[in-house]
Amino acid sequence: MHSPEELKGLVEEALERIDLWPELHGQATSVRYSLEVGGKRVRPVIALAVGEALGAPVEQVLPAALALELVHTFSLVHDDLPAMDDDDERRGQPSTWKKFGEGVGVLAGDALLAEAVRLAARYESSAVARELAEATLGMIGGQYLDTMVDGYDLAAVHRLKTGRLFYASVTLALWAVELPEEDQAPWRGFAEELGLLFQIVDDILDEDGYVREHLAEIDADTTVLRDIVDSLAVRRA
Amino acid sequence: MHSPEELKGLVEEALERIDLWPELHGQATSVRYSLEVGGKRVRPVIALAVGEALGAPVEQVLPAALALELVHTFSLVHDDLPAMDDDDERRGQPSTWKKFGEGVGVLAGDALLAEAVRLAARYESSAVARELAEATLGMIGGQYLDTMVDGYDLAAVHRLKTGRLFYASVTLALWAVELPEEDQAPWRGFAEELGLLFQIVDDILDEDGYVREHLAEIDADTTVLRDIVDSLAVRRA
Repeated sequence: MHSPEELKGLVEEALERIDLWPELHGQATSVRYSLEVGGKRVRPVIALAVGEALGAPVEQVLPAALALELVHTFSLVHDDLPAMDDDDERRGQPSTWKKFGEGVGVLAGDALLAEAVRLAARYESSAVARELAEATLGMIGGQYLDTMVDGYDLAAVHRLKTGRLFYASVTLALWAVELPEEDQAPWRGFAEELGLLFQIVDDILDEDGYVREHLAEIDADTTVLRDIVDSLAVRRA
Repeated sequence: MHSPEELKGLVEEALERIDLWPELHGQATSVRYSLEVGGKRVRPVIALAVGEALGAPVEQVLPAALALELVHTFSLVHDDLPAMDDDDERRGQPSTWKKFGEGVGVLAGDALLAEAVRLAARYESSAVARELAEATLGMIGGQYLDTMVDGYDLAAVHRLKTGRLFYASVTLALWAVELPEEDQAPWRGFAEELGLLFQIVDDILDEDGYVREHLAEIDADTTVLRDIVDSLAVRRA
């Protein structure tokens, strides 16, 4: 069994040497850039850990794990677009559209999603691709509710926007190791709760951000109060 | 065997009653809108015709055929975005982003691609989804070359941008009817040439458009010349 840190290392290595489809031509540059900006790679690490827990070698789950990271990256690249959150930066680097232009930013997200499908379709059965498509649609639905609908139940939004892909991090691994559907129920229960956990962590981080914002606006020495907030802080996945 | 017109009718019917993923929530409205704007549905009709030529019932090829139309529609929805071609209209109707806003336009394209994958993943084998992902990546590469690179070989651009999905219209049907890979070569030869044919038709239509533009700028009675151009006109698929 590998540690999470070792699994992350394997994911990084695999992402570096990922073989993008040759017909992408120059569009591949922005796809690689958006994958290199990095992150904690939590989703693929969860998938690999589920696979190892079920006794499968890393290589068997790796395409599904990478597919999850590509879908996650696709969602970030499109989220950052001026038409969406209009973010110039992502983890201290220019966001993909900012670096390559808006048109390439749209296409980079599209290409990441299509490459994710190509990875998911490396398995003989279509189950991995189907589960990935369903999770992607749930995530898109969450995006829609979050950015376009005012006052929609925030918990439901986060369950889709954040939780859906964490759920899939477990369930894609189940199909990748060919665990029969009738044995999947306890894993799916875990997947639901894991999605919920990440959603709650996300909510706390949002609230944590708001608290810090308000604190910064107060014209007084709030050092100790900030230390208290710091001590409560959880880390974003 | 159905006529192309009958096959188109079957495609329209199936598109009308397509079951979008429930987690899309309100995002489904713009997805349906972009599918209803219509078109000749040539790609799915080709796929169904290939299936019937191979003796398979329409229902067997229908999910693959619809997946092709959804990928085609996804490409139009993203092409129309301000960041790309900035088109307000599509077939006389407001383009998706113009009707629902730019953010929803981005998400509508994303959702169409993910729904296409869900359709392709209805087959037990992942071959349909894999072939669809490869074609989509080729199309995206063509888009990139067309909009971002000046002076790239125009024939190569069109082969990817237009021809790639026509090629897939044939090859997806082959996997959908489970034609063994060793028997696919003559069909793939046909698919290549079909892609090329549509590319040439596309080029003629572009040129046809330019001719008409120049004609319109001439301050004289060009009625007869326009009739001559009309008589040469080919129809866009």
